[in-house]
This record gives sequence, C-alpha cells and structure tokens, in this order.
Amino acid sequence: MEIKYMKTAKTAKESLATMTEMVLPNDTNPLHNLMGGRMMHLMDIAAAISAQRHSNSVVVTASVDHVSFNTSIKLGNVVTLTSKVTRTFNSSMEIYIEVWNENIPMNSKEKSNHAFFTFVALDSNGKPHQVPHLIPETDEEIELYEGALRRRQLRLVLAGKLKPEEATELHSIFNLSKP
Amino acid sequence: MEIKYMKTAKTAKESLATMTEMVLPNDTNPLHNLMGGRMMHLMDIAAAISAQRHSNSVVVTASVDHVSFNTSIKLGNVVTLTSKVTRTFNSSMEIYIEVWNENIPMNSKEKSNHAFFTFVALDSNGKPHQVPHLIPETDEEIELYEGALRRRQLRLVLAGKLKPEEATELHSIFNLSKP
Amino acid sequence: MEIKYMKTAKTAKESLATMTEMVLPNDTNPLHNLMGGRMMHLMDIAAAISAQRHSNSVVVTASVDHVSFNTSIKLGNVVTLTSKVTRTFNSSMEIYIEVWNENIPMNSKEKSNHAFFTFVALDSNGKPHQVPHLIPETDEEIELYEGALRRRQLRLVLAGKLKPEEATELHSIFNLSKP
Amino acid sequence: MEIKYMKTAKTAKESLATMTEMVLPNDTNPLHNLMGGRMMHLMDIAAAISAQRHSNSVVVTASVDHVSFNTSIKLGNVVTLTSKVTRTFNSSMEIYIEVWNENIPMNSKEKSNHAFFTFVALDSNGKPHQVPHLIPETDEEIELYEGALRRRQLRLVLAGKLKPEEATELHSIFNLSKP
Amino acid sequence: MEIKYMKTAKTAKESLATMTEMVLPNDTNPLHNLMGGRMMHLMDIAAAISAQRHSNSVVVTASVDHVSFNTSIKLGNVVTLTSKVTRTFNSSMEIYIEVWNENIPMNSKEKSNHAFFTFVALDSNGKPHQVPHLIPETDEEIELYEGALRRRQLRLVLAGKLKPEEATELHSIFNLSKP
Amino acid sequence: MEIKYMKTAKTAKESLATMTEMVLPNDTNPLHNLMGGRMMHLMDIAAAISAQRHSNSVVVTASVDHVSFNTSIKLGNVVTLTSKVTRTFNSSMEIYIEVWNENIPMNSKEKSNHAFFTFVALDSNGKPHQVPHLIPETDEEIELYEGALRRRQLRLVLAGKLKPEEATELHSIFNLSKP
Repeated sequence: MEIKYMKTAKTAKESLATMTEMVLPNDTNPLHNLMGGRMMHLMDIAAAISAQRHSNSVVVTASVDHVSFNTSIKLGNVVTLTSKVTRTFNSSMEIYIEVWNENIPMNSKEKSNHAFFTFVALDSNGKPHQVPHLIPETDEEIELYEGALRRRQLRLVLAGKLKPEEATELHSIFNLSKP
Repeated sequence: MEIKYMKTAKTAKESLATMTEMVLPNDTNPLHNLMGGRMMHLMDIAAAISAQRHSNSVVVTASVDHVSFNTSIKLGNVVTLTSKVTRTFNSSMEIYIEVWNENIPMNSKEKSNHAFFTFVALDSNGKPHQVPHLIPETDEEIELYEGALRRRQLRLVLAGKLKPEEATELHSIFNLSKP
Repeated sequence: MEIKYMKTAKTAKESLATMTEMVLPNDTNPLHNLMGGRMMHLMDIAAAISAQRHSNSVVVTASVDHVSFNTSIKLGNVVTLTSKVTRTFNSSMEIYIEVWNENIPMNSKEKSNHAFFTFVALDSNGKPHQVPHLIPETDEEIELYEGALRRRQLRLVLAGKLKPEEATELHSIFNLSKP
Repeated sequence: MEIKYMKTAKTAKESLATMTEMVLPNDTNPLHNLMGGRMMHLMDIAAAISAQRHSNSVVVTASVDHVSFNTSIKLGNVVTLTSKVTRTFNSSMEIYIEVWNENIPMNSKEKSNHAFFTFVALDSNGKPHQVPHLIPETDEEIELYEGALRRRQLRLVLAGKLKPEEATELHSIFNLSKP
Repeated sequence: MEIKYMKTAKTAKESLATMTEMVLPNDTNPLHNLMGGRMMHLMDIAAAISAQRHSNSVVVTASVDHVSFNTSIKLGNVVTLTSKVTRTFNSSMEIYIEVWNENIPMNSKEKSNHAFFTFVALDSNGKPHQVPHLIPETDEEIELYEGALRRRQLRLVLAGKLKPEEATELHSIFNLSKP
Repeated sequence: MEIKYMKTAKTAKESLATMTEMVLPNDTNPLHNLMGGRMMHLMDIAAAISAQRHSNSVVVTASVDHVSFNTSIKLGNVVTLTSKVTRTFNSSMEIYIEVWNENIPMNSKEKSNHAFFTFVALDSNGKPHQVPHLIPETDEEIELYEGALRRRQLRLVLAGKLKPEEATELHSIFNLSKP
C-alpha cells in the first residue's frame, strides 16, 4: 500500500478524475434524454473526487456556478466526465468539470457541457482546513487558474458576501466562462 | 377526469409544486450529509414539474444559475422543495426553487437554499413552442418577476450569447439573487 | 433556526405533507403502469412524515388498512400524495393519504386512490410514547376524526385483539372508508 | 425450452414464488429497521409473480387487505417471502404472502407478517380475462381457499361494491385473518 | 423466536436459498436484455445468503469461477436463482448457483446459466473461522461435493497459490463444470 | 460532431475506459465493505464500454473468467476501474479490467483486483459480426495479447466446447492470469 505525504502544493493533474457512465432508463425523461439534475449529480461526484484527491480530506460542495445544457444525451449513450482542481483559496477549491457525450454505435463523440463547482475541505471535526496550493502546468490549466479569481468574485457578489465596488476583477466579468 | 384548456396566461400559483423527501443513506456523503449533487437532482425534478404544469408539455432543463450550499442536511432529515414559475420568455420559463430542511424529532426547520432553473417547453416533435405568460400575484412573485430580466441577461452574457454592453439590466446585477 | 415546543394538541393541518413524484421506468410494470407496491412505498413515506410532524419523534408503521387500486398511472405521469393525521390513540396515529394522478401534457388530473396507515411514535429507547391530541378543523377533518374509531375497531378485530361483541362501533362498519 | 399449455385448473403449489432479500441501508428508517412501505413493495412483487404463474398473463394489483407490522426487521437481516394463489374469481386472484425474518449470524428465524393481495389478469389489449380455477391440496390451502369468500365479501363491502345485507359470509367476518 | 445451535456438520439443503426477481428497466442494456454484471450481482447475493446460512456468520466473497452467458434474459422476465453450499474447506465454502429464466406470459422456462462462488466466514473481529462440514445427500449434491476438490485446485493454480505439479486432481480438470 | 469511420484494426488504447465510483451505503455488506457482486457489476459496465468502443456496436457479455477478491474496499472509498480490449476473435473481444482502491483521506491507493471478460459484438438484427483486429502497442498490451490464446482455450475447455487434447496452448495453462 502506497502512502503519500501531505504536500504544500500539487499539480492540477494530480487531482484529475475520469468518470464514465452509461445512461440508464431511470436517468432519463419521457423523451429518453438524460435529465439535467442527474447530470449535475454526476458532476458533483466527479468534482468531489478531484477535491478529495487534492486535499486528502473529506469535502463538501459549497457552490455550483451557472451551468448550461445545450446537448441532448440519449438513453444508452456513454457520458464521460473529467474534473480537476483549477485553483485553491485557503480551505476552498474550484473544480472544472467537462462532460463528453458518446453514441458509440453511431460513431459520434461531442463535448456536451462544462461547469465550475466549489468544494470546502473539512478536518475530522468538520472544520474547514487549509489545502495545498495548485500548480497549473498546461496552457489550459494556467488560463483556468487565472480566470478563477474573476469567477470567485462573481460568486461572492452573487452570494451577497462582497460589495460590487470591491470586485476589482469584475471588469472582465464577461469572460468568466471557460475559454 | 378533469380537463383543462390551454390558457394564454397563468398565475405563478398554478405551477406550484411541493416535494417532500426523506434523506436516505445513499443520498449522503461519509459525513452523513445530503450530497450537493443529489440536492440539485431533486431541485431539477421539482422545477421540471412546475415547468410542465405551466406549459402543459414536455420540458427540458436549459440552465441552472449559481447555487450556494450553506447548510448541512443530515441523514434522516426531511427536505421540502417548493418551486414555481417566475417569468416566461417565448418557449423558456424561469423557475424559482426554495429548499427547507427539517429535523423533525429535534423540532427544527430552516431554509436551506434556493435556486433558479430555466426550462424550455417542447412540442411532440421536440421543437420549442410558445408558453403562456406568467401572472405574478403576491409581492414576492412580483419581485421575482421583475428580477427575472436581470438574471436572464446575466445568463445570456455568461453563455456568450449577449454582449455586455447590450445587457442594460446589468447595472443592477448585484441584486440578482432572491430578495 | 426556528424551535417549536411540545404541544398537548395539534391541528391536522400541522401534520400535512405533500409529496410529488414523477413515475420513472423502474417504478413500472411491463404495461408501463406504476406498480401497486411502489405506490404503497410512496404512501408509507408520506404518512411517516405526517406522523413525525405530529409527534416530533421517530415513528414506525403499525398497520395499513385495505387499499384499492382502480386507476392505471402511466410512466412519466406526476403523482401527488397528501397526508395528514386524522386522530390519535395514546402512542398511535391514524394517517389519511390521498393520491392524485396527473398527465400534465394531456391536461388531465384525477384522484387515484386513498389509504389509512397507522403509525406508532417511539422515544429514544424505542419505546412507544404519548403523542399530542388531534384537533380537527374542517368538515372533512371532523368526518375523518369521527370515522377513526370505527376503523380502529375493525383493525383490532381483524388483528384478533378485540372480540367482535365488544366492537360497539362496528354496527356502522360499512361506512368505514373515506366519505 | 419447456412449453406449458393453458390449463382450466391449477394447484396452489404451481404458483408458489419464493423471494429472498437482504435488507440494505436504503430500505431502512433512522432506527435501521426495514420500512413498512418497502416491505409492501416486496410483497407486491412476490404476489405479482404468483399471479403471473397462475394466469400466464400480465397482471395488475387490484387491492391489498389489512396488513399489520409487529416485528422490527433489522438492516442486514434476510427476508424471505413466499406467495401463492388461494382462490380465483373470474379474472381476479387472491394471493397469500407470508414473510419470514432471519438474523442469520444470531441464529434466529421468525414469522414476521402475512398479507392478502388481489390481482387481475389482463390480456394483450389490457382487458381482464378468465383465469384457471385453483385446486387447493394441503389443509392450509383448503382453509385459505374457504376463507377467501369471506375476505372477498369484506373487500367488496369496504369498497362500497356490495351491500352489507348481501354479504352472507360476513357472519363469520371476525375469523378473516389467516388461521 | 426459534434458536438453532452451532452444528459440526450441516446438509446442503439447509443452506438452500431461492431468490426470484423481475427484470426491471435499469437492469437491462439497450437491447432490453439483463446485463451480465447485474446477473452476477444477483448471484453474489443469493450465494452470500447460502454461505451465511451454512456458517451462521458474516461472509465475504473470495472468488468467482468462470461464468458463461448463453441466454438472453428479457425485460419483464422472471429470474429464479437457487444456491447451496457444495463443500467446505476450513473457513471457506464453495457455493453452486443455478439461474432459471421464465417468460411467464409466453409459458416458457429454461435454465439460463450456473456458477460457483467461494465465500469465507468471518468472526466478529473480521477473522476467518472454521465452518461446519457439508453433508451431501442427493446424487447431484454428491457429484458437486466430489468435483469441488478439482475446482479448488484449479482456483488455487489460477491464483498462483498452488504449483501445477502439486495439483493432483487436475488430471480430470476438464470435467470441472457442473455435470 | 466528430465522425469516425470503421477501421479494420484498432489499438488497445482506443478502447480504454476509465470509471471512477464512490462506494455508497447500498453497495456494501454489514461489514461496510463493497460487495463482490457489485464490484462485478461495475467491471461489466466498464468492460462493455471498451467493447463498444472497439466494435462501434452493441455488445453483450459472453463470459467472465475466474475473479479473486483479496482486498476489502470500504464504504466511502473511491474505486477506479480501467478496461481495454486485449485481443479479438471474429465477433468476440477479450477485455482486461483492473481495479484500484483508494482511501483518499488516508492517503492510500492499492490495486484491488483484475478480471478478464469476453463480449460479443451484435449488429442491428442481434447477430454477431466481425470486429476490427487489435493492435497491441506497449509491453503489457503485447503480453496480454499473447496470453489471450491460452485463456481462450481454457474458457472453451471449461465450457465443453473444446477437447482437452486439442488445447495446444494449455501446456502453459498455469500462467493464465495477468503477468
């Protein structure tokens, strides 16, 4: 059994989780499409695993940013979710989740949607604790890392925890979503 | 069997859905708290029923606005969701969902969180169709109705479908969340 | 967090639980109708929530009265259950559950069936404890309250716990079901 | 593949179904006991299989007689249900279900409860059709067969489909439950 | 409540478990056939109940022998599994599981497949403990008992725990599967 | 939407599926360990996705080779399955599945077990059809490719479809399991 020691910084890649699911009948609406709520349920599980991997602790969902559903995912399709940490703020971690939709017998694969979830790491008493810093490596990871500040300010403003005039990053608010 | 005829406008109350659920073991994380993703799954089902009631048609989730999770909801608690349509835009409907958390043996009940989901009404060919207008009646319904324009502009900007300079309602963006 | 104190009597309305569910594929038989057993599962959950709300304690199902299934409820329909306490007997509570079946795209809504469940309130040692009295308010609640004695005597006779000649209310046995 | 031909009469034993289930976490309430509603769900599935075996057709639940819950069945216990047809009435079949509760590591096994369900056999157009007569063989089967008339009359009276004065079997109503 | 005392030997029949399940939508693949993995899940539960009955203790799955799937089992069919202990080896038990596939409205019933699972009995500290010997009674039980040595040697060789040259029973390896 | 055309040969890597799951309460036995049957259910889903990816068609499970369970996987752990095609035989594909067990808060990760499943590719009439050849690339893939012949002969012998004396590869039978 391999034992890892607590690190003060970890790469985005170390938190990568890949989750593959077949769309089953109970996941679908009367049009035989995957229900949006079930999709968010899957996103939350994938993101929680990434947050656990980064913090090596129990984690809870703190918030979910705006999510759009543009694609219909059919019964029997295969859904693949990848998630990784983009940046950390003391005890909280922003996670980026990407969802792919495959109809394998039809030979098609397309990106379905993406989302940003925020998790908080808890210690054994249920109190938030400091997590390792995030080291972005690829161009995409760096872009996600840099955008995290803007998204966090919008999140705080929307939750009424930051005054708009203090949200200095929000000049560029309209580039919030994934590049 | 009572038959209702298509209306050109309906009140918010006509779309009200109340959903009560007990938190079961498989809904919880290792801290025995309801998982955020399972909560969103429940929100999506309640909201879909409201959207169906307003449009009398099949509906699909189009988007979910920012959701915060501030309360831990324990295994065995009772969760009550109420949802209703706040405003419509051609074929789309914004739904407001409120979640209450009860620990009945402990005599406690508190608001847990709220969310705005957007649904689109589909006809039998899977094409979007016009839905009835929404008539807000109470003070809260009027406030939700008026805020819907701002929330819709933010949604469109975040999805890259509206230029920031055209988002005239966004001067008041920071009052987006429920009053 | 709102705290309520133990009362010696509560209204029927205070125990009202409303539960809305979409009929999913795994709930149905090969004719795509909601299975009777799944319906009773839902009734039991709704009734348990009402019994918890009245007694502010953990509750267990003690018995189910005769239930008829006259309506077929289709896959994709919305089922709404309402339940409330009708009368109490020391530690036991009779609960009345009404089930409505909606096919929303077809604009139809009809009463599907109803049932009476009995629950017992348990303290933290798993022993039955006294629950508040029930105050019926509406005409329907008064009628349900008065009929509860007859239904209880039939229940006791059927369970072999009361001799027929002592079941004084059973002269009117044949008006047992909901008026 | 063994093919059986339609018979005009079948023994009770031919419809016997035995169903064994482990009690899993999601089947239990906060006291870790099997929920009454989940038990009725299992009873309904076992009874449906017996009704199918007797009628060789699709079946639907028509009614459930009074059921008592006297035993607490714990998480991890094994529940065994046996069900068989007791008597038929044109297109309807009465099914007797017996439930046993085992805590195997504790070396204990006890009868938990029993119930009578009524099913109707449907043809491929969803219309009720005649089912084979039932041939009781053992003493218990004969007793169940004879009691079925009384239980049927009580069922009809409770459903408002038979006038009390016509319910000639109901003089012995108070011996309705299983001998 | 009936209490049994620990025995040093038990018959195969004492461990018999019969499990009947209807194939539900979520158990099936896009061809509406029961998925192989779901079948193995059911086999494991039936076998675990037999192993518990023989050892009167908690049990864990140690291994599964080669399983073939030759029959397609359709949505709505009834699957019956019977399982019993064939032989024991200190703390481990070999279980034989037979699966039958019924399409009741079509009047057909056929054997679908069979499997051998091995379980280990654990005491309250999670340590393996000695289980009663197995007494085979019928011809089939005797044949299964005798074949168990060969199957065990193949299992040990495949797991790298026995050298081929020590596997004296493997001369007859090719009669391993059920007669 | 990216469209791929049918190939006559594909690499092992093209069929790789990664599946990550949290162990939930209903997946566990009374010792809070993942049940063996649930593990095989997950293996079957992962393997089916690999077989679909290789054949671009609907697939069904044909057989499962001997599987050992040596590790206990606890409630709340994260299980990661990777699966890929090792070799093909006309319409059938052998899939190798590896399972990893992580207790993330405890910083541990270990290989739990592995298995070989065989799937058959079906066309739209449910008939087996030829699948692309498999191109092994890494050393491990070449070793798995070469071992596939031996495993296939053992499978055929165990299923009574090949005479032992014709199983020329079985001289090295005892190196069947993963290198």
